[in-house]
Amino acid sequence: MPSEFSITRQVEFAETDLAGIMHFTHFYRWMEVCEHAFLRSLGLSVDLTTGDQRIGWPRVKTSCRFKRPLRFEEEVEVRLIVTEIRDRSIAYAFQFWKTEDGKRVKAAVGETVAACVSFDADTHAMTPVPIPEVFRSKMEEASSAQGEG
Amino acid sequence: MPSEFSITRQVEFAETDLAGIMHFTHFYRWMEVCEHAFLRSLGLSVDLTTGDQRIGWPRVKTSCRFKRPLRFEEEVEVRLIVTEIRDRSIAYAFQFWKTEDGKRVKAAVGETVAACVSFDADTHAMTPVPIPEVFRSKMEEASSAQGEG
Amino acid sequence: MPSEFSITRQVEFAETDLAGIMHFTHFYRWMEVCEHAFLRSLGLSVDLTTGDQRIGWPRVKTSCRFKRPLRFEEEVEVRLIVTEIRDRSIAYAFQFWKTEDGKRVKAAVGETVAACVSFDADTHAMTPVPIPEVFRSKMEEASSAQGEG
Amino acid sequence: MPSEFSITRQVEFAETDLAGIMHFTHFYRWMEVCEHAFLRSLGLSVDLTTGDQRIGWPRVKTSCRFKRPLRFEEEVEVRLIVTEIRDRSIAYAFQFWKTEDGKRVKAAVGETVAACVSFDADTHAMTPVPIPEVFRSKMEEASSAQGEG
Repeated sequence: MPSEFSITRQVEFAETDLAGIMHFTHFYRWMEVCEHAFLRSLGLSVDLTTGDQRIGWPRVKTSCRFKRPLRFEEEVEVRLIVTEIRDRSIAYAFQFWKTEDGKRVKAAVGETVAACVSFDADTHAMTPVPIPEVFRSKMEEASSAQGEG
Repeated sequence: MPSEFSITRQVEFAETDLAGIMHFTHFYRWMEVCEHAFLRSLGLSVDLTTGDQRIGWPRVKTSCRFKRPLRFEEEVEVRLIVTEIRDRSIAYAFQFWKTEDGKRVKAAVGETVAACVSFDADTHAMTPVPIPEVFRSKMEEASSAQGEG
Repeated sequence: MPSEFSITRQVEFAETDLAGIMHFTHFYRWMEVCEHAFLRSLGLSVDLTTGDQRIGWPRVKTSCRFKRPLRFEEEVEVRLIVTEIRDRSIAYAFQFWKTEDGKRVKAAVGETVAACVSFDADTHAMTPVPIPEVFRSKMEEASSAQGEG
Repeated sequence: MPSEFSITRQVEFAETDLAGIMHFTHFYRWMEVCEHAFLRSLGLSVDLTTGDQRIGWPRVKTSCRFKRPLRFEEEVEVRLIVTEIRDRSIAYAFQFWKTEDGKRVKAAVGETVAACVSFDADTHAMTPVPIPEVFRSKMEEASSAQGEG
């Protein structure tokens, strides 16, 4: 397990706006893409059926601070850190890194708090549930590996 | 029932790209928004449970010809015409109209063919089904009213 | 000038995800749409050339707390409150309201801090500038009217 | 130069809709992403300044036929074929391939016709221009290599 999880993406044309930079909403989409890739790296999925429960992770809170604009075709690294594992929710911090004039600079920092819920297949109703053991054990392992990094 | 169905929308900032115009994918989203508003105008919904069937309308084919760019905050009329009602699918034509130098000009024309399917609630599997009578009668009524317009 | 600014929107099909609810990124898009509609209500635009300056408002920080999911075709009111007008930035708070079992409930609350910048037309480079007087006077007027509401 | 150009992508959560499948508009976004990756593979960019001209490629026409739904986390190959190089435009065909029950199946086929235009930096106005030699020679080379494949 690596002590840090990250993905690298390139800004797409459809993600830019008339100001010539990546529209801020896509930072949030990228955070989620990184979170799901992190779960896959643990052998999990954000859309997982465990026992007779279909588990989901709706967002409770998200935020982002934007420091540098991202431009079309720029390569960006999104880093994920597990910051807290609670009974029924998990908190992640994210950093966006790019290269500017040969130096690595932080373009943005964000956070996500996601609740663990069980879905009703027919109604799509969501009920908060304790994080299933299959998630908790792997997340804690990844988290402690990050702490040692 | 009006002989023609249309909605009016304004180009949003997040819909523009670095070329300063609405990204072409949003023309397709707008067509779908217009189609769903048309269904609501008939007292229907694109996500409808009738009897014990949950009906959906996945796209079989879509296309669009782009004649004029749309810019931020421009007001655009999207017109829908029902072009064909088949046993298990329906075809719509769309026109995008805006005002340029005081004249109405066509910015784009598109088409959508949507299949009628029944959803399995658990697996989300889709099975093609004949268009339910509740849809067919209202669509035909709207369509013939359009033809007379 | 009303003491409070708001818009009403309906959740679109393309805004939902496989969990059957509006994807959280669209709350942020809606906040921006509401902000731009607010500026238009003051006779301004988020993309404004004043004197020889092209002014823009990139986001410095955004956040959102999600309390209730929004579902396809639900009608939602987005309310905007000007919370602070600084020298080179402005802060807005947002509330998302919907009707559930006949009662008005808050589905989400958000905030945006937007910086005032001047764009270079050729390079798209952004330089922070004091909020132009044409913006400041109208925003302060709207803000004080809100305070009295 | 490979005789065929393709990229592989995984369906993201934000790309799904309440029917549990990738929303059709994203097929069009993926076609564009594939087209831009193809241009980069030739040492070009869709946003290129050549001499004193800033060149762009707005869409003239796009279309797509949808054969199989794409689901969350499915891996999909998008293949691009240059179908025609005209004086002021280029036509591409696209195929979407995935694996179903161990077999490769075509999920969708699409096409794009893109016009070559020159941008005015200040007004963003677009004027159709002949495809610059730097594009034409590399595209023709790639196209003939595809034909031999």
